[in-house]
Formats: sequence, C-alpha cells, structure tokens
Amino acid sequence: MENRPSAQNLNLLLQNLLPSTLSTVITEWLKEDLPSFDYGGYVVGNTQKVAILFAKANGVLAGVPFVNEIFHQLGCTVKWNYSEGDFLSVETDTAAKNKSRIEVAQVTGPANKLLLGERVALNLLARCSGIATRARKLKNMGDEAGFKGVIAGTRKTTPGFRIVEKYGMSVGGIDNHRMDLSSMVMLKDNHIWAVGSIPSAVKAARSVCGFSMKIEVECQSEEEAVLAAKSGADVVMLDNFSPNDLKIAASSLRSRMNPSNSSDTFIPKVLIEASGGISEATINQYFCEHIDIISMGDITQGVPYIDFSLKIQQV
Amino acid sequence: MENRPSAQNLNLLLQNLLPSTLSTVITEWLKEDLPSFDYGGYVVGNTQKVAILFAKANGVLAGVPFVNEIFHQLGCTVKWNYSEGDFLSVETDTAAKNKSRIEVAQVTGPANKLLLGERVALNLLARCSGIATRARKLKNMGDEAGFKGVIAGTRKTTPGFRIVEKYGMSVGGIDNHRMDLSSMVMLKDNHIWAVGSIPSAVKAARSVCGFSMKIEVECQSEEEAVLAAKSGADVVMLDNFSPNDLKIAASSLRSRMNPSNSSDTFIPKVLIEASGGISEATINQYFCEHIDIISMGDITQGVPYIDFSLKIQQV
Amino acid sequence: MENRPSAQNLNLLLQNLLPSTLSTVITEWLKEDLPSFDYGGYVVGNTQKVAILFAKANGVLAGVPFVNEIFHQLGCTVKWNYSEGDFLSVETDTAAKNKSRIEVAQVTGPANKLLLGERVALNLLARCSGIATRARKLKNMGDEAGFKGVIAGTRKTTPGFRIVEKYGMSVGGIDNHRMDLSSMVMLKDNHIWAVGSIPSAVKAARSVCGFSMKIEVECQSEEEAVLAAKSGADVVMLDNFSPNDLKIAASSLRSRMNPSNSSDTFIPKVLIEASGGISEATINQYFCEHIDIISMGDITQGVPYIDFSLKIQQV
Amino acid sequence: MENRPSAQNLNLLLQNLLPSTLSTVITEWLKEDLPSFDYGGYVVGNTQKVAILFAKANGVLAGVPFVNEIFHQLGCTVKWNYSEGDFLSVETDTAAKNKSRIEVAQVTGPANKLLLGERVALNLLARCSGIATRARKLKNMGDEAGFKGVIAGTRKTTPGFRIVEKYGMSVGGIDNHRMDLSSMVMLKDNHIWAVGSIPSAVKAARSVCGFSMKIEVECQSEEEAVLAAKSGADVVMLDNFSPNDLKIAASSLRSRMNPSNSSDTFIPKVLIEASGGISEATINQYFCEHIDIISMGDITQGVPYIDFSLKIQQV
Amino acid sequence: MENRPSAQNLNLLLQNLLPSTLSTVITEWLKEDLPSFDYGGYVVGNTQKVAILFAKANGVLAGVPFVNEIFHQLGCTVKWNYSEGDFLSVETDTAAKNKSRIEVAQVTGPANKLLLGERVALNLLARCSGIATRARKLKNMGDEAGFKGVIAGTRKTTPGFRIVEKYGMSVGGIDNHRMDLSSMVMLKDNHIWAVGSIPSAVKAARSVCGFSMKIEVECQSEEEAVLAAKSGADVVMLDNFSPNDLKIAASSLRSRMNPSNSSDTFIPKVLIEASGGISEATINQYFCEHIDIISMGDITQGVPYIDFSLKIQQV
Amino acid sequence: MENRPSAQNLNLLLQNLLPSTLSTVITEWLKEDLPSFDYGGYVVGNTQKVAILFAKANGVLAGVPFVNEIFHQLGCTVKWNYSEGDFLSVETDTAAKNKSRIEVAQVTGPANKLLLGERVALNLLARCSGIATRARKLKNMGDEAGFKGVIAGTRKTTPGFRIVEKYGMSVGGIDNHRMDLSSMVMLKDNHIWAVGSIPSAVKAARSVCGFSMKIEVECQSEEEAVLAAKSGADVVMLDNFSPNDLKIAASSLRSRMNPSNSSDTFIPKVLIEASGGISEATINQYFCEHIDIISMGDITQGVPYIDFSLKIQQV
Repeated sequence: MENRPSAQNLNLLLQNLLPSTLSTVITEWLKEDLPSFDYGGYVVGNTQKVAILFAKANGVLAGVPFVNEIFHQLGCTVKWNYSEGDFLSVETDTAAKNKSRIEVAQVTGPANKLLLGERVALNLLARCSGIATRARKLKNMGDEAGFKGVIAGTRKTTPGFRIVEKYGMSVGGIDNHRMDLSSMVMLKDNHIWAVGSIPSAVKAARSVCGFSMKIEVECQSEEEAVLAAKSGADVVMLDNFSPNDLKIAASSLRSRMNPSNSSDTFIPKVLIEASGGISEATINQYFCEHIDIISMGDITQGVPYIDFSLKIQQV
Repeated sequence: MENRPSAQNLNLLLQNLLPSTLSTVITEWLKEDLPSFDYGGYVVGNTQKVAILFAKANGVLAGVPFVNEIFHQLGCTVKWNYSEGDFLSVETDTAAKNKSRIEVAQVTGPANKLLLGERVALNLLARCSGIATRARKLKNMGDEAGFKGVIAGTRKTTPGFRIVEKYGMSVGGIDNHRMDLSSMVMLKDNHIWAVGSIPSAVKAARSVCGFSMKIEVECQSEEEAVLAAKSGADVVMLDNFSPNDLKIAASSLRSRMNPSNSSDTFIPKVLIEASGGISEATINQYFCEHIDIISMGDITQGVPYIDFSLKIQQV
Repeated sequence: MENRPSAQNLNLLLQNLLPSTLSTVITEWLKEDLPSFDYGGYVVGNTQKVAILFAKANGVLAGVPFVNEIFHQLGCTVKWNYSEGDFLSVETDTAAKNKSRIEVAQVTGPANKLLLGERVALNLLARCSGIATRARKLKNMGDEAGFKGVIAGTRKTTPGFRIVEKYGMSVGGIDNHRMDLSSMVMLKDNHIWAVGSIPSAVKAARSVCGFSMKIEVECQSEEEAVLAAKSGADVVMLDNFSPNDLKIAASSLRSRMNPSNSSDTFIPKVLIEASGGISEATINQYFCEHIDIISMGDITQGVPYIDFSLKIQQV
Repeated sequence: MENRPSAQNLNLLLQNLLPSTLSTVITEWLKEDLPSFDYGGYVVGNTQKVAILFAKANGVLAGVPFVNEIFHQLGCTVKWNYSEGDFLSVETDTAAKNKSRIEVAQVTGPANKLLLGERVALNLLARCSGIATRARKLKNMGDEAGFKGVIAGTRKTTPGFRIVEKYGMSVGGIDNHRMDLSSMVMLKDNHIWAVGSIPSAVKAARSVCGFSMKIEVECQSEEEAVLAAKSGADVVMLDNFSPNDLKIAASSLRSRMNPSNSSDTFIPKVLIEASGGISEATINQYFCEHIDIISMGDITQGVPYIDFSLKIQQV
Repeated sequence: MENRPSAQNLNLLLQNLLPSTLSTVITEWLKEDLPSFDYGGYVVGNTQKVAILFAKANGVLAGVPFVNEIFHQLGCTVKWNYSEGDFLSVETDTAAKNKSRIEVAQVTGPANKLLLGERVALNLLARCSGIATRARKLKNMGDEAGFKGVIAGTRKTTPGFRIVEKYGMSVGGIDNHRMDLSSMVMLKDNHIWAVGSIPSAVKAARSVCGFSMKIEVECQSEEEAVLAAKSGADVVMLDNFSPNDLKIAASSLRSRMNPSNSSDTFIPKVLIEASGGISEATINQYFCEHIDIISMGDITQGVPYIDFSLKIQQV
Repeated sequence: MENRPSAQNLNLLLQNLLPSTLSTVITEWLKEDLPSFDYGGYVVGNTQKVAILFAKANGVLAGVPFVNEIFHQLGCTVKWNYSEGDFLSVETDTAAKNKSRIEVAQVTGPANKLLLGERVALNLLARCSGIATRARKLKNMGDEAGFKGVIAGTRKTTPGFRIVEKYGMSVGGIDNHRMDLSSMVMLKDNHIWAVGSIPSAVKAARSVCGFSMKIEVECQSEEEAVLAAKSGADVVMLDNFSPNDLKIAASSLRSRMNPSNSSDTFIPKVLIEASGGISEATINQYFCEHIDIISMGDITQGVPYIDFSLKIQQV
C-alpha cells in the first residue's frame, strides 16, 4: 500500500474527483465578473500583495481546489492553514488574535488579481461550505441515530454550478446520488405509463443503458416495489411514504429478499430508498434499519451560507 | 405614448432586460444535466404531452423568460396562468382543486423533452423566485417604514448564475447595485492605499472609467465621506456603521450638501449608501431619511427557495 | 400503454437517447469542413434541389438522427426510405433500378447547402453504420450460439466522436458498456496497488461514487474475483483468461453465488465479464452460460465502413 | 503611497484594465489565421530566433499587452524598447541605424511561432496605435484650445474588436464613453416615444438600471435638456447642434444649474455632451467652457493605421 | 444551364461564399455589445416597429448577408431596396425625399431588438462597404488602364473580422489573395534561410502542402524569381521593386516562359505578383502587361468608412 | 543553411504543421472522457508515477505531438524512445524483454492524471498510426512500381478528427489532398450543370477563389478534361476510369500539353488525377507515368488500427 493519508485526511483526496477541464468553467466565472475593463484594477495596480482569507462563521471548509484554480488562473498562489473538510470553529482558532474570525488561508499575488479573484472565490466558498456544513450535520444525525444506510442529495442544484454543489456534498460526507440524466436511470410514473408497466419500463431502460448502469424505480406502494425488484431494478424508491408506512414496507421488502423465502414471495436483492418531503427537521423519523438510502433536496436548496472574506494586508 | 402595460404589469417588460445571447448559457445548463445519453428519454418516448407546472409554496414568481427559453430550446411551449412578479398564494388559487398547490403554467411538448427541461427549469425557478420573494419582502418593509431610498443587492451571487439572481432582484423590486467589476467603480481601502489618498484614488479611477460611470468610495468615517465627495465621488458608502452612528453621519453629510453652507463645510451632492452587517432582521434599524441606498448580501445568499414541480398529465 | 412502435421498430426510438445539445458538436463538424469561404457553393448556387442518398454496400443503417441534424442546420430536409437499424441489402432493393445501390433517402434543399452537408453526413454514416453492422453481426453470432449474456463495447472510440460510435453500437444491438470515466467505476491493478487491496479499493470507490453507480473490478484470478465480490463489487472482469480457464472460473464463481453454499465459500451475486484479446474471429470460443458480458474493442476499432454517396438530381 | 510610476508612465498601468480572460479571444484570432496546417511553419522550423518589431511611421505606440499575450500563447517573449503610449518618431530614434524605422521591440522564440504571431500582432498594433494616435492628436487640440472638458469616443468600433479599440482610446488620452449597451443608459427618441415623455423614460430607465448607473438623454433642444435634467438624467446630449447654437444652449443650461436661480428656472447639475457631425476638421469650433464632453465616431472609424513590421534576424 | 442571375447580379451569389457557421461569430458580436442587461431595451419595449437603414454617403453596398443574419438572430427581418455591390449614390436616389441620404433597407421587428442589432449592423456595414468601395475604385483604375491582371488584397485585416473584410474585397471585385496561413504557401527570406536555398524551401513546402496548393516565393531579384520558377513555385512575388525595375524584370521573366527559349534560359510558367509599397496613389505606375497580380494592404488598412444609420419610424 | 535534421528525421518537423490552437480540441476530448467526477482518480490518488507506452503490433508511429499535448494538459511529461514516423517492429526491439511489445515511451505524472490521459492518447495513437501505416504501405508500393506521381488521401475522415487523420497521412508520406471545402476548389457535375458548362464553371470559381488557389475539375471523359484544361483548370480528375482507359486518356492528355502541338490540339499544362474505386488491392493497376495523383478514400476509411497500451509501473 502506498502512503495514503490517514483516515481523517481522506478529504484531501477529494480534489482528485475533479475534472482537469474544470478550468474552462472557472474562466467563464471570472469573465462574468469582469466582462470588459477593470477600472479598479487600474487604480490598485499590480504590486505583489498578501491577502488573508478569513472565515467569519463556524462551518465545514469546502471548495479548496476550486479556489486554488481561480487564483491559479490569475497568477496568484494560495497557502491553506486548514484542510478541505475541516470544521472551522471561530471560537477555537488559537492563531487568531481576533476571536470572531479564522485565518483560513493566505493568497499571494498582484493586488489587482487578488481583487479579481476575491468575489468569485468567496461566492463559491460561501455556498460550497454551506452545503458541506449541512451535509455534515445530517451525516452526524444519522451516525448518532445508528443509521447504517446513506443520506443522499439530489439533482436540485443551481444550473451551471452542480459540480461544486455535488462536490460540497462529498466533502460533507453525503452520497451524491446520481449526477445527471446520463447517470443512473430513474423510472417514474411517466416512464411507466409510456410503456405500460413497470416490467416493460425496466426492460426498455436496460436495453439501452446496459449492464453497467443501475436502474431505480419510483414506487407508490410495496406492490410496485416488489414488481420493480422482480423486473430487474437495482434500487426501489418508496416515494412520499409516511415514516410509519415506510418502515413497514421496507421491513417487508427486506424479509422477502431472503433467499429462503418461498419463490412466490421471494424478490431479488435491491436497495431501498426513501424520498419525498424529508428535511433536517423530520429526518430522524425516517432512520430505520431497512432503508439503504434517504435522499433529500434540502442539502442543496435554501442552505445557509458560510461567511468568508478576503483582506489584502497593508504592509 | 404607445400602449404600455399598466403599472402593475411592468414586470412583464423585465424580459426585455435579458440579452438575446442568453440562449448559449441555457444550452450549457441543459448539457450539464444530460452530458451524453438520455436513457429515460428512450423509455418515455417522444409522444406529445402536456405537463403542469405547480407552485407548492407562497412566493413571488420570477424566472419566466428563462423557463420559456429552456423549453423553447427543447421544442416545447409554455402557457402561463400567472405573470412574472405575481405573488403566488397557495390558499387563494381559485382554479386549483388541490389547495396545496397552484397551477402556474402548462408546458406542451414531447414527453422526453419535457423531462429534459424539468429539472433545469425547476432549479432555476426555485432560486430566482426565492430571491424575488425575499427582495419583495424587504421592499415592502422599506415602504412600510416610509423609506424613500432604495434597497440594493450585491455581487454575492452564485458563480455563472448572476444574471438570473440579479434579474430575480429586479422582479422583487430591489436595486441591482453594480452588475460586475466593469460597472460602477468601487474604491476600497486597498485602492486608496495603493495611490496614497482618497483624492488620488478617485482621480485615477476617473481617468480610466470616464464621465459615463459612477465612482463609489467605501468610507470608514464621516471625514472620509467628506473627502470622497469633494474628490468627485458619486456615491459614498458608510461601511459597517452602527445604526446610530450611521444616522448621525448621514444627517450631517446631507446638511453639508446644501449649497447655502459656507464653502469650507460644503460638499458636492453625493448619494449615501449604508452597507455591512445588515440583514432582514436588522434592516428596520437602518431606515432613515438621509440614506439613499441600503445594500445587503442576504438578498442572494442563504435565501429560502420556492418549491415548484412539473407533472406530465396522464391522458 | 401508449402507442409504442412494435418490436421491430424500437430502433426508431433510439433517437430519443441523443442530447438536444448535440447540435453544438455538429456545428463544429460543419465548421471543420468549411473554415472560411465556400467557393464551390458560389459556383453551384442556392437553387432548390433534391439529392439521393445511396448505400453502395450491404450493412445496417445507423446515424439517421445525426444526418437529420446536419441537414437541418443547413436548411435542408431529409426523407428516409429506410429506418434506423434496417439492414440495407443492395441486391434486394426493389425500388432501385440500379441493382448496385439502394436509394436510402432524399435530401431537399439549396444546392450549395446539400454539398456542404454531403461529406460530413457521408463520413458519419460510413462509420456509424460500419459499427452497427459489426455489432449486429456479433449479436447474431451470440444469438446463434444461444448466448444469454450481452456483448459489449469499450471506450476505444475516436476522440470527440464517441457519442456517434456508442450510438452505433446501440443500433447494432450491443451493450454500450460504460460511457466514460464518470460512469461505472472500473478498478484495475493501479487502483488496487494505490490503496493496498481489493477491499480497500472497492471501499474507497464506494465512498465517492455512492450507491447509484456500479463498481467493476478487473481480476487476474478466480481468487481476486471472489475477493472483489465479497468486497461489494457489482461486476468482476476476468481479464485475459484463455477460453478454457474462463469457463472454469466463471462456472465456479456462479456456483458460489448460490445462497445455499456454506458461508465460507458463498459470494454475493455479481455479474461476470470476460474481456481481453477477444475478436470476431475468436468470440465463439468465449460464449458460455456463466458469462454475463463479453466486451471487445474490435466493435469500434478497425471496423470496415459502409459506403454511401449523395447525388444531386439533375432536373 | 506605494511606489507608483511617475506621471508620464501611467500608461504602463493601463494593462491592468484588461481582463485576464482576454486570452480566449486572442486564441480565436490565432485560429483565424491558422485554421489547419502551417505549411510555412514546417519549412521554417522551430529553431530559436530573434525578431525585431519595427515602426515605420510616426505615431503613438498602443497595444503592448495584447502583443505580449499573442506571443506568450505561442511560447515567445517580447522585450520592449518603448513603452505603451510613447510617441514613436522615426526621425529621432537614436538607436536605429536606418532612419526610416524604429526598433520598437525584440521578440524571441521558435521561428515558426514568430511567424504565426507576426500578422495577428502587426494587424492589432497597426489599428490600436492608429486610434491612439488620432486620440492623442484630438486631446492635444483640446488642450491647446484650453478645453477643460473631455473628448470621448463612441460604440462605433469593429465588431469583436471593441476592447482593443476602446483601449487604444485610453492610451491616447480620450474618454471611452460607454462600453456597451449594458453600461450607461442612453435614451434616444425611440425610448421617449415608447413611454410618452422624457420624464417617463428616465423614470423607467432608473427603475431597472438603479442608482449605480448614469442615464444620458439625447436632446434636440434646450427645452428637452431642461426637462431631462429635472427628470433625473445625469448627462444631457445636445445632438447635432450647430457650434453656435451649442454654445448658447450650453451656457444657458450651465447658468440654470446655479442654485441661486429661482426655483422655476433652476435645474439639477448635469453633464453636457455635444455630439453629432463633429470631426477632427471641425472640433475646434465645438470647444467651449460649458461643454463637458465632446464625442465623435471618427476616433475609431476611418482612422489611418500605423505601419509596423516584424523581421526575423538572420544570425 | 439553370436560371442564373444576369451578369450584373452576380454579386447576389456572393452570399453563397459564407459558411453557415457564421452565426456563431455573429452571436459573439451581439454579446460584445450587450454583456448583461439591456436597460434601454426595457424602456423602449418590444412593440413591433419598422426601421429604415439609410446610407449617408456614396459607396458600394457590402455586407448584406451579415446584416441579414444579425437581425435574423434577433427575430427581425430585412427588406432591401438595393443589392449587394450596388453603388449607392446619394444624389440620384429617386425614392428619397431627403436628398442627403438613401433608403437602403427596411428592418422590421420588436423595437428593443432593432436597437440591439443597430450598432453591430452599422459598424459592420460601415467597414465592409468602405472596403468594397476602395476595392471597386482600384478595380476601375485597373480597368481604365487596360490592366489585364488582378488587383489583390492581403492578410492585413482586423483580428477576428477577416471574413467580413475579405468578403468586402470580393464585393468590390478584388482578388482575396490567400485567406490565411493554411492557404497558399508563401515562402519568404526566413523560410529560405532555414533550409538553405530557394529550391530546398520549395521542395520542403511541397512535401507537406501537396499538389493541391500553390506555392509563392518572395523574390528580391529576377535571379531569385528564375530560381523559384525552376524549383516548382507557382507564383513569384517581386517584392518592393521600383515600378521601372518591376517592368523590366516582369518582361524578362515572361519572355523566358516562352517554350521556344533555349533550355538554359527557359523557365516554367509562373504567375508574377508585384507587392510592397503600392497604394492608391501609386498603383497607376505599377500596371503593366506582364504583371499578373498587384497586391496591397491599403485595401483593408486605413480605409474610409461609409456612413449608415438606422432610424425607427414613429408611427 | 541551419542545422536541419537529416533526411530520415524530417518527420520530426511535422509537428510544426500543427496549429497552436490545437489545445482547445484536445481539452474537449479529455472532457468527453470525464464529463464530471473521476471516481477512479480518487481511488488511485495523485502520487507521482511512471507509465510505459507499449506498441503491441507492427506499424508506423504517428501522433506524437498530440500525445505530448494530451499529457501536457494533464501535468505529465512524455519521453519517447522512438520518433514520429519510425516503423515499430515488435520482433526487433532490442530493449524489450518481452518480445511481443515495444517500449515506445515513458509518461511521468500523477497516477490519476496518467489514467485520465490513457484512453484518449491510446485511441488517438491507434487510429493515427493505423492511417500512417497504411499510407506508408501504399507509398512503398508506388515507389516499388517506379511511380513518380503522388498518392493522395481524401476528405473521407472522421468528423471532428480530420486534423489527426490528415496528419497521419503526412507521417505516412502521402499527399493530404485538399484539407476542406475552403481549400482547392473541386468542380463536379453539379457545379457544371448549375452554370451550364465547364468553362463557365471554371470562370465562376476563379472569380471568387482568385489566383492563389487551384481549381480541379472532375471529368468523365478525355474531352471534358481537354475542355477543363483549356478553361483554366489546374488539375483534371479522371473519375472512375478503368485502369486501361485511364492510361490511354492520361497519355493522350500529356502529349497534348507539349507546346509543339498544333494550336488546335494543344492544351495548357495541368495535373492529372485518377480517382474512384481505387483500393490497396487494385492500386498497382493504376500506376502509370502520365498520372500525377492517385487519390483514394481507403487511406482513412476502414483502416486497421495499431494496438498500443499504457501500463503504470508498480515501484
């Protein structure tokens, strides 16, 4: 085994998830904030400066490789005091003189370039860390409740910004769920109507997605879930079940996956997902031993941001 | 005068703000959600269908022209029951049988295309309407407090998504503040250090931005604001003042803009902006007659979303 | 059930797999063949004309939606005599006067535009149909041998042209295998060395790819396949096994998936893939009842093309 | 104050105006001149060479940062003997042996790359320096006439090349006027007709452009200018006035901005712009003390170019 | 022969030269003038309007298909009173009431879209028509002098705008010369030094450019031209020759192309190009019967523009 | 003469043919294989590694500069044991321990980046080398037959991948023929019908393509070829002639190019191309002394690939 970081530093490896082609979209973001002339840049000049990146609220640091690339494109370098995934706690930052903020990193480069990257970097960090913070909290709630399944996000992300938000979920310890429509096939009511039945829909999907992809079927009842499992689905989603109904259905489905069941009640092994109407406030009611996945849109929607700022140091 | 919509329908004209080149970025958003094959689209087929766009929570509808363009690119058409800027109130939608949701629009097109646009459109509406809703609320708070100035947003937007978020502010009745770094020049401490003084910084900025742009100076004291106004700034920002200090400084500055003042206390007319640490919870303390602009990041950051859904109708 | 095409016409639905954003890449292809002026187009003029698309060799027609889009971008329309996936047989085309070629479609539009689309369309059809033809042949060989598994392609495609080649596989009835590196995770020797063992590698992969993706492990021996299955892999690849060794290993693995096996020999159910050194000439030796997937690069590499031509009709 | 260049070297700072995303458009320019193979590059080879950039006519050097980026993308470096904004005078170049040309810079790099950058760089310099030269001349004419206002350009630039042309104006010491339609709002007859009156048009514009942007109104008479000023315009343009009428109107408007005027004649302070039919030949007639801005399209249209050449040195 | 326009209308066919992919670059031009919000567009609204395109100076109309595409992208239509290549003569426009301008076209569409296309269209027409006008004038000078060769442009065009400028040359009746570095190979001193001799340079070039391209050699003397012709060049350029020397050399070269010459003086048939220091003022001195091509940069550099304007009609 | 590589190393110079803007398309290829997350990259980590590029079949190495750029974009470096154009012979590689493969290069970089570049690089090499190998073989067949003309490719290339395939032809020693529709003009039956005759078509083409481009006319008979030559064509293509007819026609045409012919049989010197239905199997029948060019699509269509692999070394 090669020298891999210890468990607590696995987050450092998450940067390896990101495509090298990321730089193109980051160039677009910079262009959005500076479509033509940089009048302020003319005033501030290109003298080499150091800026401090401060966090001004508690939360999980997420977005490090994006910030690195933003400033790299501008000819600046970033030195981090904290690592991706670290929980930044304003009160306990021993290095900080000012107890209301944490020195997260130093960015060095020409003054005008530091200011060009400032707002893009802060906007990204605020949202990415916000998502990681909520994800971490949900993960911890699951852990405390002894939940053995995974909590997962959704495709409810900001258009054009999904890779950052999915990445923030990963930093927070949450399952990304499917990335896009070209990933795991999800069959809903429309798909089933279109071909007439759950078995026909699963068969049609398999004929094009092939063996290498999973197929999930959104089910309104245990019966539909049984049918989906027998049809070759890999995951069944119990959609908008009440917590109580969910537990009953999941338990029943799980027991039918036991091969010792008689062949008429037996169903192949599938993963069971709970989804629909679950929030931070209600998730505790959904944890149960027969649920493999709990997914929710609130990991990316309406999430509080983490406040960061960047201050150029006056020498 | 041509037949311009009545006052309450001015929001319909907001679509004219949007660049015709918007379609390029919308194509990118669609590509983000479907990078390669559409397995679900194969299953559902391209039979012509009608889908209903529902709102499931109260809020200001914002994002109509973006949704139109998303579905236009997919060969679908959208018919709206409500107009941009309308306040959607779940309880009072008389057309709806189901009192927990409102039929906002019908989208017609091939089933697979409806599903391709679904998530992108909903993600956009959820965030754009969320921002418009918060903006409208703040606007109303100002109106109720008799505030004559404007409440304004910031550049604290999601990278790559600013045009939607700035547009959402407009729908909500909030001032967009500057769009980007190529718009109004904002001179902060770094700019002033770089050239030695506020007058030098304003002069340097004016030499490149020209007569057609405004210059704002971030000021830490009334004295700095006086200096900025005398140097040719168009706007002075009183940065992070307490509500009480703000009112004293603004009142004093305003009285010095009276041309009957002796020449040593007189300052040219400038707009006065209050910024820093202002939120929905505290904004009421900042309303005062001598403040022209109150700006705050919370109009775009950490904003609750408005929940929408799209349901294909089974014939 | 809605009016879905009968079984033999399912290929018509394959167009629904393609992203609406396909048009961007097609524009690039047209630009490749006409970077600046179209001197020939000036000579030929823009008089409306009809051109016949001929096939001059037997094969499976594949690429219809791409050709439609190419000519659509040029303001031309295409009317097809054959459908996607049809086997074009030169000898049996009853409509053709000339027995050495088949009238596959009519393209109508300005003469200069017909010639602009001609080469791009023919180049695409020649390759896409070539791949579909080889895929169909392999599929038929499997069917004739009573093979119940799937034959699958690889990522050995032409850079920038993968979507056409994968689509051609689908038309030919072959499994696409994974689309790209963001699809199913494939763990090879490098991955395993990096983290020290198959179980560690599978665990690391699952921690980021989540529940919604499959994980395949490339195995050099039955022992490795057993380890992979026990570690949570979804697919095991028996890499470069001789046909005989392959059959022995696959049979043994299959029997160990029987839940009645003692717990020390039992392994969870996984799919078994054979890969490495398999070609059209040798594939017959690899068909066996315990293999789920046979994958091979020769479906896209070194494939004979199908000859098409486009002739404008002189009126 | 930091070590800022002395007054005469302020032009060096103009490079800080340019967006870092400029490189994308420069890549497109290089692609325009080399869409596919570089046959000449094959012949000349990639031996390291030095080329001299010569100016062959008098003029203001403008375009340095663009030339730097062009050659940077090609792996070449540029060393300048003159600075941005320097007036190149062929007769007085003491270093030059040949009195008919000036050695402006040395470019070092592979021979094929020098030739790839040559034409793009020269084409850019010829136009950018041509504009700066005319701008400088007009600026000097104003200075000599004791004009205290600014001379400004327009949006009459080459499509796709505006940033270079606006930058050339800056180097020449001319005001850029508004950059594009997303900058300062300009209300013309069409806008006023559309909403019925100047006050309505200004009000409508302000409702969307907000406090941070200026609004200019094109006026056909002093009465319209008064109305515009009272309506909240920041700039009034006296459009196509004869020099004499212009002076009368401007003087009258200026006196009405004096706060000691009776309230019925008083108008708020606005900037006064003269525009329409002004050229290098006629501008002297338009200089007057009450005009703040004189704008003209001839700064960018029909401008003589400055001739540059690039010669690889034979060792 | 199909119904081809009569000789005088051949310019109508020039639109067929333009690539269908032109629309991409036009979208970029529109984006340049409207990077974000269109405040004026909000004010003016989207009521359907008619605008008149006026020419305000005499010149050759050039740029019609570009203007059509600009307005097409904005949902407007253009109806032309004149055709591409027509000479617009202000005094003789019988339809115009106002004798100082010509009604060239009507553009119909929403008011805001007309204004969005206005500046881009006018900027393009002003330059494209300016180039066509100068080209036509030079062409006429050659015709009047009985010159049988062609007058040709160069690659001295505005970066990113070459296709428009080369097209303007075509409308004016001038030879485009090579389009870019991937077109005809031009061998200059650097290329010859690099490989040691003219024959080696021509041989190296031919080895990569193949039979389908022409090779031109820049020659400083008749001897070099002879060598180039014998080495397989297709065109020899007599570079910077005085008019007198040029005529002597060209005449001598031409006589040596006569196959009845003895084999030691005979040279293969090549085209003879004169280039270097030729302008509108001096071109008359260069016309001679043995010159095939006279090329000059002044067709695209420092060219006077033709003034156009667009006026929305008040109903 | 500068130090140019000896004859056998001229292939090293072929990299100078490639545009510096190539990097953009290579970025797209990398994006195609990694549209979002790199799960395998996370597992394998970014430890610095060395990978060996092996050839596993005999053939001509082609594609080196593309592979260099692919890995350069990923932060890896490539060290080659063989040069572009070398014939790789598995049996004679003395360095290799394993006689079934050749160590062609070492690639050094982070493990995850090596794997990101692997498939794109191998797919490119397999095709580019396959084309170079077939081209070299055809070239050798011509040389052995004493053929003095050139063998040339066509535009029958993979959409979006032409530059690689044309480059592969160059490495193999084959003439590229025209690159695209903006290169040499080719007049076919449609063009001739459109304007009524070969002379009219050539004249129309020349009026727009100018002196710098060649014009080729596709001819069905010797008479047409004579007419084309007299009309000013540079190349005549004898289309789909049988080998015997071809030789008779070519010989006759050649003799008529002799200036001593009487004026009524004399034709200007043109190049003679044979095309249509020529393959590796039949090309030997077409070699003859009066043919200048033999072109065929089989150089790029249906070409066997050369098998390469990349193996990271376990330390």
